[in-house]
Amino acid sequence: MDELEIDAVAEADVTDPVLVEGLPGVGHVGSLAVEHLLEELEGDSTLVRRVYSEEFPPQVSLEDGVAELTCAELHAVSVPDGRDLLVLTGDHQAQTNEGHYTLTNAFLDIAEEFGASEVYALGGVPTGELIDEYAVIGAVSDESLLEELEDVGVEFREDEPAGGIVGVSGLLLGLGERRGFDAACLMGETSGYLVDPKSARAVLEVLEELLEFDLEYDSLDERADEMEDVIGKIQEMEQQQQQQMDVPTDEDLRYIG
Amino acid sequence: MDELEIDAVAEADVTDPVLVEGLPGVGHVGSLAVEHLLEELEGDSTLVRRVYSEEFPPQVSLEDGVAELTCAELHAVSVPDGRDLLVLTGDHQAQTNEGHYTLTNAFLDIAEEFGASEVYALGGVPTGELIDEYAVIGAVSDESLLEELEDVGVEFREDEPAGGIVGVSGLLLGLGERRGFDAACLMGETSGYLVDPKSARAVLEVLEELLEFDLEYDSLDERADEMEDVIGKIQEMEQQQQQQMDVPTDEDLRYIG
Amino acid sequence: MDELEIDAVAEADVTDPVLVEGLPGVGHVGSLAVEHLLEELEGDSTLVRRVYSEEFPPQVSLEDGVAELTCAELHAVSVPDGRDLLVLTGDHQAQTNEGHYTLTNAFLDIAEEFGASEVYALGGVPTGELIDEYAVIGAVSDESLLEELEDVGVEFREDEPAGGIVGVSGLLLGLGERRGFDAACLMGETSGYLVDPKSARAVLEVLEELLEFDLEYDSLDERADEMEDVIGKIQEMEQQQQQQMDVPTDEDLRYIG
Amino acid sequence: MDELEIDAVAEADVTDPVLVEGLPGVGHVGSLAVEHLLEELEGDSTLVRRVYSEEFPPQVSLEDGVAELTCAELHAVSVPDGRDLLVLTGDHQAQTNEGHYTLTNAFLDIAEEFGASEVYALGGVPTGELIDEYAVIGAVSDESLLEELEDVGVEFREDEPAGGIVGVSGLLLGLGERRGFDAACLMGETSGYLVDPKSARAVLEVLEELLEFDLEYDSLDERADEMEDVIGKIQEMEQQQQQQMDVPTDEDLRYIG
Repeated sequence: MDELEIDAVAEADVTDPVLVEGLPGVGHVGSLAVEHLLEELEGDSTLVRRVYSEEFPPQVSLEDGVAELTCAELHAVSVPDGRDLLVLTGDHQAQTNEGHYTLTNAFLDIAEEFGASEVYALGGVPTGELIDEYAVIGAVSDESLLEELEDVGVEFREDEPAGGIVGVSGLLLGLGERRGFDAACLMGETSGYLVDPKSARAVLEVLEELLEFDLEYDSLDERADEMEDVIGKIQEMEQQQQQQMDVPTDEDLRYIG
Repeated sequence: MDELEIDAVAEADVTDPVLVEGLPGVGHVGSLAVEHLLEELEGDSTLVRRVYSEEFPPQVSLEDGVAELTCAELHAVSVPDGRDLLVLTGDHQAQTNEGHYTLTNAFLDIAEEFGASEVYALGGVPTGELIDEYAVIGAVSDESLLEELEDVGVEFREDEPAGGIVGVSGLLLGLGERRGFDAACLMGETSGYLVDPKSARAVLEVLEELLEFDLEYDSLDERADEMEDVIGKIQEMEQQQQQQMDVPTDEDLRYIG
Repeated sequence: MDELEIDAVAEADVTDPVLVEGLPGVGHVGSLAVEHLLEELEGDSTLVRRVYSEEFPPQVSLEDGVAELTCAELHAVSVPDGRDLLVLTGDHQAQTNEGHYTLTNAFLDIAEEFGASEVYALGGVPTGELIDEYAVIGAVSDESLLEELEDVGVEFREDEPAGGIVGVSGLLLGLGERRGFDAACLMGETSGYLVDPKSARAVLEVLEELLEFDLEYDSLDERADEMEDVIGKIQEMEQQQQQQMDVPTDEDLRYIG
Repeated sequence: MDELEIDAVAEADVTDPVLVEGLPGVGHVGSLAVEHLLEELEGDSTLVRRVYSEEFPPQVSLEDGVAELTCAELHAVSVPDGRDLLVLTGDHQAQTNEGHYTLTNAFLDIAEEFGASEVYALGGVPTGELIDEYAVIGAVSDESLLEELEDVGVEFREDEPAGGIVGVSGLLLGLGERRGFDAACLMGETSGYLVDPKSARAVLEVLEELLEFDLEYDSLDERADEMEDVIGKIQEMEQQQQQQMDVPTDEDLRYIG
């Protein structure tokens, strides 16, 4: 295998598709969003490319005992009445700094091959606390893209995310801009501690408005409910633990002596 | 030295051999199995290739003061009345992600050179506890290989090993499949804490049935007995330690003085 | 993108300019100094080159939601009545050992292209304690450069900084010397714990004397005042914390009850 | 700079010289020995090559404010009435696994250029405790070299050093053997905690017998005396500390109650 191998699994007839990336990251927001997208639009989508690379961990995943070499996958989606999509998923990120550059360039090569000129990188932005209202934070490769996103409720905040955006999502904007793509990053707020299907839904709802497709959310909401149960149990345990650890309060101390 | 150098130590006349890999890993199951295999079939085997690589640690091992540069070795084995083998051993794994890809491809190159089209990667799967019944867990490069392995008692479990298979064993399946090999991984259950000759025997017994050879197990059983003694002593020490650490209770202290 | 890409943003007419480097480091002394320099000489400076590299972290920074790919920037400055400058800034250092070599050579290539033969690398040297008098410590690529620097108050101390100088600043001296540059490192003393505008001013004042330009320091002094406030508050908090942590002594406990 | 640059500082007329390596390592035994060797034979030695490499840390060392780029140095020594030497020193080892291979090959290239066919790699072997009698442990690239070394008191022990020999010293044997050199490693026993001039002397005394040169040891013995003082102070401090920490003995406890 060379450092990078791209398997042409199939071809597909998509017109000016938008590259939508959802690789693993904070709260699994990007990958949850993209998995749900592919699930809902399954009838209209074709697996077109697999990207193998020595930059991925040297690993196979298993499904019912059958091994599959770590790779990233691109699906072409012909959305009825909407923009065509080229959807990028995978179980792993690159393992080195240079690997992020190498893979992002490979993804943009494939995007170009399919005639794409726009990119949406989906992900999460960690807030450090549980969230009620799921804002979607944005970042763009060019100022001219701000207005369209603000119109559908994407928020642009000074110095957020602090430290910029790292990894493939960041480079899709940075390298994308240098190669002539219009690229935006849509980041759902998420605690950062848990897999977050609600944040993924918030991001997808923005994408629906931007790209004119319609999704059902039943399966994603179910996963959100499961996570709520998990959170509920954690909170219960924490309360019990606190009660057990109860230190004497000022009130208690008054009775000493 | 180039990044990779393959010394042709000797040639050997083997027909459609099966590549059997046993590099160091969990419980040393793979390397114990392969070492035992070579010991028992010593009269029928020839060291054919040494693989040197900058991907190995920059290190020599010593035997009676004489240094040997880290390498992997391939032995051709003409099994009487059974399938011929090409057996891969070595003291070290690659030290980087890319190194695992580089070395696995080199091993598959040599396998091709000797006319091999099948691969068995031997290893251990950690259970975290001491084991009575040594199951052998499997993984295959293609669904069509499942039945033959299930017939000789190999178990295929959902999501096990969790996280897939990392390193040369995993890549022999992943890269092997891409290069047209039929590849399977045979993983003996093992605690993960200790060198485990019993697990190695369990794996070899599966291989015997698959490849039609016969091994004696006296020397491996001896090593297993030695390990039993070690385990016994550890357990004894743990019990004593617990007794000694019994701190005086309030009850005890009442009688001081 | 190749491993290294240099964008020629603009050209500029500078004569025998001096390369002045201020990348991030101890106390941000170098980058504060160079940022202030560019701010004060803004009317006379032109952004001439951007250096992109896979050696930088795979990251975009954000300004008002617009992403910019990590890079280093070189500004040509035509100083009125003084030496022309080529000023090197950036938000990041290389992430690997080899990356420091690669980037330093790229910076020296650009310096040569603009006709530079002298280099000043600006930085901080950590003392481990708060500082009243900000000395500037020096290091040079050639003995012949010592006198001129000593004349303007730069101190050369035995074995300081201990362990030598690591990263781009060090290599500008080491590789610079091999390529025929006269290179010096000017390191302001700084505690090492905080961003230090006062240390940056000390370094710039040395540079003013050496290169015959004049700077105002109002904005840098303001940042220094802000830091003083921060330091004051930290010291206050530490004192309060110590008082609050005073646990009751035996004496105190006697009066309970 | 390329990945590797070799400066031909001077030429020297040596005949069939022996490469003697002493780079930093356990107890600084190798570098102390080689530094002392060069000091004592200063009148007969010439600095012939400097090796610069991106595999070294990106760093300059300082002497009186003047920077010197990290490198390794080779000195040709015309020993009166003895074998000529090619002595390898330096302040740093390579920073990566592959770097050790790259640099060792470069050193062997230079050795070949000067007509060398023998190598002695000097170093220390850690024992974990303070040492009275400094044995010198050996390792060789070929069995035929054992006898000559045993004759001068070098000890060859089963499985020692455990795990083999890592780094340039190990590779000089491993790669050296592959390239036709006769190579040996001489390792002085040393605690592993402290710089150890006595161990360096033990190694040099073996080398004297092998290569027929004579050294004075006054300066090395002085350093050994200094280290003895340091060790004495450490032991004193440890004793005092133990006395202060004295926990009640059984004897003490008898009087409670």
